[in-house]
Amino acid sequence: MSEIIIKNISIGDELLIGQVINTNAAWLGEQLSGAGFQLDSALTIGDSEKAILDAFNACMDADLVLVTGGLGPTADDITKPTVCKFFDTELEFCQAAYDNIVSIFNRRGFQMSERNRGQAMLPKSCQYIPNTYGTAPCMWLEKNGIVFAFMPGVPYEMKGIFNDELLPRIKERFHAVPYEKRVIMTTGIGESFLADKIKGWEDHLPDFLSLAYLPQYGMVRLRLSGKHENADFLRKTLDSEVEKLKALISEYIFAMQDQPIERTVFDLLINKGMTFASAESCTGGNIAHAITLIPGSSEVFKGTAVTYATPMKTKVLGVPSETIEKHGVVSQEVVEGMATGVCNLMEADFGVATTGIAGPSGGTEENPVGTVWIGVASAKGVVSKRFNFGKERENVINRATIMAFEMLREEILAHTENAVS
Amino acid sequence: MSEIIIKNISIGDELLIGQVINTNAAWLGEQLSGAGFQLDSALTIGDSEKAILDAFNACMDADLVLVTGGLGPTADDITKPTVCKFFDTELEFCQAAYDNIVSIFNRRGFQMSERNRGQAMLPKSCQYIPNTYGTAPCMWLEKNGIVFAFMPGVPYEMKGIFNDELLPRIKERFHAVPYEKRVIMTTGIGESFLADKIKGWEDHLPDFLSLAYLPQYGMVRLRLSGKHENADFLRKTLDSEVEKLKALISEYIFAMQDQPIERTVFDLLINKGMTFASAESCTGGNIAHAITLIPGSSEVFKGTAVTYATPMKTKVLGVPSETIEKHGVVSQEVVEGMATGVCNLMEADFGVATTGIAGPSGGTEENPVGTVWIGVASAKGVVSKRFNFGKERENVINRATIMAFEMLREEILAHTENAVS
Repeated sequence: MSEIIIKNISIGDELLIGQVINTNAAWLGEQLSGAGFQLDSALTIGDSEKAILDAFNACMDADLVLVTGGLGPTADDITKPTVCKFFDTELEFCQAAYDNIVSIFNRRGFQMSERNRGQAMLPKSCQYIPNTYGTAPCMWLEKNGIVFAFMPGVPYEMKGIFNDELLPRIKERFHAVPYEKRVIMTTGIGESFLADKIKGWEDHLPDFLSLAYLPQYGMVRLRLSGKHENADFLRKTLDSEVEKLKALISEYIFAMQDQPIERTVFDLLINKGMTFASAESCTGGNIAHAITLIPGSSEVFKGTAVTYATPMKTKVLGVPSETIEKHGVVSQEVVEGMATGVCNLMEADFGVATTGIAGPSGGTEENPVGTVWIGVASAKGVVSKRFNFGKERENVINRATIMAFEMLREEILAHTENAVS
Repeated sequence: MSEIIIKNISIGDELLIGQVINTNAAWLGEQLSGAGFQLDSALTIGDSEKAILDAFNACMDADLVLVTGGLGPTADDITKPTVCKFFDTELEFCQAAYDNIVSIFNRRGFQMSERNRGQAMLPKSCQYIPNTYGTAPCMWLEKNGIVFAFMPGVPYEMKGIFNDELLPRIKERFHAVPYEKRVIMTTGIGESFLADKIKGWEDHLPDFLSLAYLPQYGMVRLRLSGKHENADFLRKTLDSEVEKLKALISEYIFAMQDQPIERTVFDLLINKGMTFASAESCTGGNIAHAITLIPGSSEVFKGTAVTYATPMKTKVLGVPSETIEKHGVVSQEVVEGMATGVCNLMEADFGVATTGIAGPSGGTEENPVGTVWIGVASAKGVVSKRFNFGKERENVINRATIMAFEMLREEILAHTENAVS
């Protein structure tokens, strides 16, 4: 059976004048790939009847059209009337949509307005799909056997509806070609050196598998993926290729799932029943933010002291002010004092600390912008390293955060190895 | 003179499987708007000859087509031959392109490969535009009076070439209609209530102006924009309409620029020479992370105590353990104790604190998931409020962070007003 053609249309002037970056298309592409489908194109257009009609008409060679955006309660949304024109139908009141809007307003404790009632007016011939994430409706319409599914443009709502409601319906309606992927997370080796190390293996991969290199902030994700009608054969081939790959680069692999490094640290700590705390200067709370995005992080994370102002390193963390005066705030001595200090203060098994110059100003000859010291303290003592993460502030913060988790991961492993030996 | 039609085509499989988010389209849209042009659509397609030819053929109603991507040393196996097919020409060696590639390799101290030499083979009928940012060429071709401009997909290279080389050529070739926009940032009022409040004004806007609502996490951005041949008249009309709008909703406006609320707080504090610190439980360091992304934030931000583990609220912030036992960790008494505690600990003018249940577990009947207490302390005392930010963890964290900054903003203003009166 041949693969179906799937197109995405994103509606919204804000996407075309650059006020909002369209992240929905990439997200939908990723979800579809994972489910054995393939996104063929993604078109962004403005809030204009002509643009919408032209875009719909250009989809008459597709099997499935996923439309996002243009369904809010305000006047700039002209999608629904245009949908009626294209599908030769008219708006009518939909009780189920109305009840959903009422329940959302009740839950949030807000009063409903006439305008919100208007959101329950839907094209007569559409199949209404409930959106429990917001008041905009989700709709399923067909023309010449082509399915058009409409979702709100707000990413949080779109993602929820797609996963909960649309994807199951799509899977039921269309044939998916089994797809599988394996992600191997590596760190400590650059993309081209990695490529050289695995070239012999990569050159002999079967045709239906492909390898992608995804470098990001001091790590390289390897994604080995493929499609095959025989799902079992696909899975077995992937597994055996991954085993060969692991044998070649085992020392650089830190996870076999596509997950951020803080997730790996979280899993390790949960497993060992241990905890950590952070003392953050240049990372400004980003280590804490990353770990606390994980549900259940309170099991492994005690807390953080962001000591942005220098005197707080002394007052909160107990780093002697003489140490700061003598060695400077961006130094091995200070980062080690911070790591040890927060470990004691928060009564954690591990304390991780950062101090550096995120930029754009504040650099010196000795410590140019991008210089970051990272330290990890535990009952065993404290280790620290100096890095330079470049000139761009957000980049420095992100790279320092990832490296702090990587150093923490290594210390957790070292700690356990010693305990075992 | 009528406006020209501009379309963008982005080529790359990685954009369709969600490996890379297409940020080029939004950036180009923003640049074009600012220069008095308008991006009509942005299409993303994969690295396939058929997809590229279909996309080019769908542009025969445009005046200008901006193509990005598909010109790297590996991907151009498809794009350049397809370009030749569409423009009925063939590849030939371009000395200027070759010299450019050689000079880039020399600058970087790398050895050139045969593959890189291939990058100097360009369609015969193209006008070569030098790319000093990388080895991929920039090309200008015409068919039936329609201009096709090809740029590399790497954002850094694309942006450089577009600004240095392409935009000047586009301005010379096409007529621009002056464009202006104003952004009004509001909070504390929902999209539909805002729309009701300003309906009378919105209905009487001149035809050449349009209003867009951009809701996000407890705030709504309003964008009033327009185009007019008379730039002076356009500017004056926008200014006077914005004044009318401000009079209608002044109490909800927190900024007149398109900026996050932490930026508004930063500007206010810089202005007043004051500082703040945060005590974060459910926001887990996100307040600190948001403010420290701003260069120079050390001027206004003292630090943060993320007291994720309950005993740390007592040990680090001095909230009495009896208060926690009596009222529970998610309570007015605790959030006020945290705010006051961190204000004193960090020696700041304001202390902002959060405690709540980000979910997905941990909710109770009294305090369901999404319940968040936010408090702000200053020399004047402490204020606090209870919220429910819904069920989705990341959403709860983001909305609580924005609301914490909003409450902090209100307190800074109240503080100053009192000081003046």
